[in-house]
Amino acid sequence: MRAATARLWRVIGNHLEADGMSYYLGIDLGGTSIKAGVVDAAGTLLAERSHATPRDGFASVVAAIHEVAERVVEDSGVDRQQVVAAGVGTPGLVDASRGVVRDAPNLVGFREAPLGPSLAEKLQCAVSIENDANAAAFGETWAGAGAAGRDGQHVTDLILLTLGTGVGGGIVSAGRVLHGCHGLAGEVGHMIVVKEGRPCGCGQRGCLEAYASASAVARRAEEAAMQGRWEKPSEGGEPIDAEAVFIAAAAGDLVAREIVSGAAEALGLACLNLCRVLDPRMIVLGGGMAAAGQPLLVAVRDVYRRLTWRLAAGSQVRFELAVLGNTAGMVGAAGIACNACGP
Amino acid sequence: MRAATARLWRVIGNHLEADGMSYYLGIDLGGTSIKAGVVDAAGTLLAERSHATPRDGFASVVAAIHEVAERVVEDSGVDRQQVVAAGVGTPGLVDASRGVVRDAPNLVGFREAPLGPSLAEKLQCAVSIENDANAAAFGETWAGAGAAGRDGQHVTDLILLTLGTGVGGGIVSAGRVLHGCHGLAGEVGHMIVVKEGRPCGCGQRGCLEAYASASAVARRAEEAAMQGRWEKPSEGGEPIDAEAVFIAAAAGDLVAREIVSGAAEALGLACLNLCRVLDPRMIVLGGGMAAAGQPLLVAVRDVYRRLTWRLAAGSQVRFELAVLGNTAGMVGAAGIACNACGP
Repeated sequence: MRAATARLWRVIGNHLEADGMSYYLGIDLGGTSIKAGVVDAAGTLLAERSHATPRDGFASVVAAIHEVAERVVEDSGVDRQQVVAAGVGTPGLVDASRGVVRDAPNLVGFREAPLGPSLAEKLQCAVSIENDANAAAFGETWAGAGAAGRDGQHVTDLILLTLGTGVGGGIVSAGRVLHGCHGLAGEVGHMIVVKEGRPCGCGQRGCLEAYASASAVARRAEEAAMQGRWEKPSEGGEPIDAEAVFIAAAAGDLVAREIVSGAAEALGLACLNLCRVLDPRMIVLGGGMAAAGQPLLVAVRDVYRRLTWRLAAGSQVRFELAVLGNTAGMVGAAGIACNACGP
Repeated sequence: MRAATARLWRVIGNHLEADGMSYYLGIDLGGTSIKAGVVDAAGTLLAERSHATPRDGFASVVAAIHEVAERVVEDSGVDRQQVVAAGVGTPGLVDASRGVVRDAPNLVGFREAPLGPSLAEKLQCAVSIENDANAAAFGETWAGAGAAGRDGQHVTDLILLTLGTGVGGGIVSAGRVLHGCHGLAGEVGHMIVVKEGRPCGCGQRGCLEAYASASAVARRAEEAAMQGRWEKPSEGGEPIDAEAVFIAAAAGDLVAREIVSGAAEALGLACLNLCRVLDPRMIVLGGGMAAAGQPLLVAVRDVYRRLTWRLAAGSQVRFELAVLGNTAGMVGAAGIACNACGP
């Protein structure tokens, strides 16, 4: 019903009179592209547009965001005056309170970059800056997996685990994004799940990311193939990806099942520990590997249930798949902007 | 200096004129005793008093809290009118938003007990209810280890680990206590640090509590003695306590050092994972076992440093010992009451 409403808005958008409603710009700033969307106060995405990310410094990126933002507002048909605030999800380390990107290795010229103030001047509205994984977690909370569903309850305590090249995460507690004192809260991919385990790029050993990222799953399959324990499903010499491993596991391949089960064990243990620390209502799995869908979700939930305590009956967490896909960061950034305007 | 000021206040208290300042009642409700204190807005404890906890039901406990609270205000010499709010730290599961103790097995008649509203009626002021471990964490943040110290910075992101019979905990993030959706956030003693490890009373295996509580340390020493690997330091047949193990370790006893080191390994790993999830400024060790002091602190910090990533230089957490001792819950409850009155 929400999607239908969104389409209706887009169709009638250009004929809208100023209706007193407020709208929000959501920007997802990535290393290769900038995505911009117009979102209403209920989290519905009315229009979206993208633009390549300039590689020649901070000012060019600000100008590109400004351009794509103004154009997507035109696309949406919303009165520009009713777009009251903007939010940006950005990679790297963010100081949300000052709107500064402290460091973002994937963006050229982003060290201590005053993205919030610079964009606010261009867009002439309030701008909130948030780390991209946190923005996505807020998006799933506000308008995705955590939005009022079957039981009519809107979730305010949610953890998003993004399973891709790495394992990212964002935490929403009592409706607020947790930042920690250096903006590093939610680095759940670097919880240690196996002491003295596999090395991780971060310098630790046994990180969740070294077991449960799409890359880790693919790497284990390559290792099994190299050891002659496994025959690659593809005929060519191209590298295996996590999807191929999940497909093989679903078809009953024992080695593939062992690899998937290893990832689920690591995820289940990490989720158990997250629940003891944060007591979330819901844990949401997103990112490329979540395309594996229900089998992955069920495997992780089974590990969690096997490990969890017998105390506090009725307090168990719900496991869900992300529903916003690659719009989560954009919608979440708009949601954070909306929230910042709140009562 | 703070303690001296507190004593001064107590001495001159009865001669104080109404000075326009506000004061707060802090109550630490335990299974055996009720402690009540009067605290000023800077977190200084002006007077304290205790009372046995009645075992004959909710109404008696409320009456006892009321009595000890009114008497400690008299002791403090503060004008009763200037005591503007009260906070209670209580064991068990708390719904802080409603002021209800949902379940507290150590207190008779405390199931869905409306402690906040009932006390507010008696005391004729606003009453905040908080879980005792959370109250203690807030106390250490507000007026203990996290209070403005050498560097003049007041910590707003702090985790307290209470190492006693069990391992309790409380989390303060951006100045707020984290509750989670069922009030179960901060159950850090039941983070799993060894998968398929030692059984814990909660039904899980490998919990931090099974390795790093005072009871766990004592139990390991008893096991070592039973196996003939260790000679008990005491001549009598009385059980070993954690303190004896720490004393033996400090004296160079190898088995005792191995046991202490095992506890530090479990604590260091749990702290590492807490830092990745929450990015606190400070982790504070409290409870009976923290009496082991610097050697324990240093051992835990060393494990943390060995395990931690090479990323985000300068973002490392500080480890400190708790400074409020057994007044943390009382002072913290007053702080929560003070905070609830705030702007």
